[in-house]
Amino acid sequence: MSKITIIGAGAMGSALTVPLIKNNHEVRLWGTELDHEIINALLAGEPHPKHKCSLPSAIRPFKEESLAAAMQDTDIVIMAITSDALGMIFERVVPYLHPGMMIGSVSKGFEYDGDGNVVLLPEILKERLPKHLTDTLSFVFIGGPCKAVEVVWESPTSVTYSSTNLFSAKHLQKTLMTDVYRVEVNTDVTGTEICAAMKNAYAVGLGMAEGFKKRKGFLHNNTKSALFTFAIAEMGILSQALGGTLLSVYGLPGVGDLEVTGEAGRNRTLGEVIGEGLTASQAIAKMKEEGITVEGYPAIRFGYLLAKQLEREAKLAVSDLPLLTGLYKILYEDAPGYETITTLLQQCTGAYK
Amino acid sequence: MSKITIIGAGAMGSALTVPLIKNNHEVRLWGTELDHEIINALLAGEPHPKHKCSLPSAIRPFKEESLAAAMQDTDIVIMAITSDALGMIFERVVPYLHPGMMIGSVSKGFEYDGDGNVVLLPEILKERLPKHLTDTLSFVFIGGPCKAVEVVWESPTSVTYSSTNLFSAKHLQKTLMTDVYRVEVNTDVTGTEICAAMKNAYAVGLGMAEGFKKRKGFLHNNTKSALFTFAIAEMGILSQALGGTLLSVYGLPGVGDLEVTGEAGRNRTLGEVIGEGLTASQAIAKMKEEGITVEGYPAIRFGYLLAKQLEREAKLAVSDLPLLTGLYKILYEDAPGYETITTLLQQCTGAYK
Repeated sequence: MSKITIIGAGAMGSALTVPLIKNNHEVRLWGTELDHEIINALLAGEPHPKHKCSLPSAIRPFKEESLAAAMQDTDIVIMAITSDALGMIFERVVPYLHPGMMIGSVSKGFEYDGDGNVVLLPEILKERLPKHLTDTLSFVFIGGPCKAVEVVWESPTSVTYSSTNLFSAKHLQKTLMTDVYRVEVNTDVTGTEICAAMKNAYAVGLGMAEGFKKRKGFLHNNTKSALFTFAIAEMGILSQALGGTLLSVYGLPGVGDLEVTGEAGRNRTLGEVIGEGLTASQAIAKMKEEGITVEGYPAIRFGYLLAKQLEREAKLAVSDLPLLTGLYKILYEDAPGYETITTLLQQCTGAYK
Repeated sequence: MSKITIIGAGAMGSALTVPLIKNNHEVRLWGTELDHEIINALLAGEPHPKHKCSLPSAIRPFKEESLAAAMQDTDIVIMAITSDALGMIFERVVPYLHPGMMIGSVSKGFEYDGDGNVVLLPEILKERLPKHLTDTLSFVFIGGPCKAVEVVWESPTSVTYSSTNLFSAKHLQKTLMTDVYRVEVNTDVTGTEICAAMKNAYAVGLGMAEGFKKRKGFLHNNTKSALFTFAIAEMGILSQALGGTLLSVYGLPGVGDLEVTGEAGRNRTLGEVIGEGLTASQAIAKMKEEGITVEGYPAIRFGYLLAKQLEREAKLAVSDLPLLTGLYKILYEDAPGYETITTLLQQCTGAYK
């Protein structure tokens, strides 16, 4: 039995309590200032407001002011914070870390580092560590197709734990894996994280093909599958340019996670309304009005900026990524959805080797 | 301008007339004895009965008895016949073939060869050629995500033309490619054909995850994406065991075609009713009653028998294919859907490298 502290009581952080409790661990769930309502509900024995169902009663919820108590004598910390707040929250956690601890992370996406470069989230965590901890902590990054609420319901789920330290990945696997929450391990952290970040971007494109159906009055499933295939190819190009491999891209973090992300959700919806005929400006304004944030929207920009950065480093050519380039033009320059996708498919077909 | 004869006036054969006419070719569409109604409708200037819309008026439809006329002076023959009838119909075409001709094929699936072994359709065609034609004809096999009706509607579509003779693949590409019907070429015939045949089998599995939702009352999208990923991995194992590569598996013929096939259709529906709780026997009986044939059903058996065959040849171990094995048990031994899928996902996760 281990002591596990989950940082962030949102959908995914909370969901992981289910396999952890099933495996008889002591589970602390710490809420940020955005999670007050959630933690209060859990302390009152009520259902989790996001999942609309009860979490295991054995979990120990901690309010924002009780981070020290939540971290006391803990063995494993799991970061479950949105990408934009990850660095800031991690800074609050760092004082409680000590050599030999393990950090898992379900956070996904991109951020700017201190120098203004686009980096994947592992860098954001590592740059915040004091020197004496840098080489003594092990990090495990979680990817793969995993809707949080389905982990709570115990739908059979398969995910990837990725770490440069395979022993750590296996240890976290052993800690969380159950009969229905299945975990594979690999060492391709870069590939796993590129997929985790970029699947949201490309899912916007898949959504467009759904929108084309309404706009034109007939299915565009061929278009959607072609976009799906080319998205996978471009994730592979990005992963390799960053020093990752194709293993994760062709596995659960890439193919699997893009499949589940394209199936439903906000990224798809954003694409769908653009596919139907709204300009991106109109679609984004509409979503802002409704208070909806869409991860794929910044992911397209971050992905495109990263590609530009990699081009400057002579690690790829942005022209090798026609789908990402087209999505950037549609989302940030109001290029027309249908025409842009049709044109880029002409370029994409046969372009990837 | 070339003369093209399409053998089989079903959905896909008829659909290819659209890009061919757009490219100003002379297009003959020959109907088998199953296509009388279609050819009569086209000769009368009526909509195609399967597509419910008109084909280009420039096509020349030929009745079954007019095969000689349909084949006269033709440059390229495109076989568009279901796998079970392909050999028989090809025997009728062979007398009209001459050295240097090109044969395209959109037929997909498995059959038994003369010795009772499971083979892919290229073998079925080649074993019917007289000696003097064996090395003088070139074959191009068409794979990738392509719902026929969307080719008629001109939804942007990307497909793969595969041939051991790259020049031939490029020639057929040039003959058919339009602004919206895009064609890439490769030489991985085996990979392309394994994907074309097996995507129907694995789509039955994807359908099951949809059925689980109704059975259990909550989504199983995580399950579906995991099945999707493992299906791709197993297609890769089969392709490589047969001497193919992974290029097609990770491209349009594999990832792309599985995506579009899992999206809708009979294979998915068969899986769905089993996922909901029917045994396979009940589900198959119901479909027979309704006169529905499902390609994925025989594909699961052929795929499993092929794996057994490859195991005897020491080219793979059937135990490396837990998903295919599980689908075979569910479809042919009435193993329970939910329990079998849950158990095989335990085996699959982390099993493929």
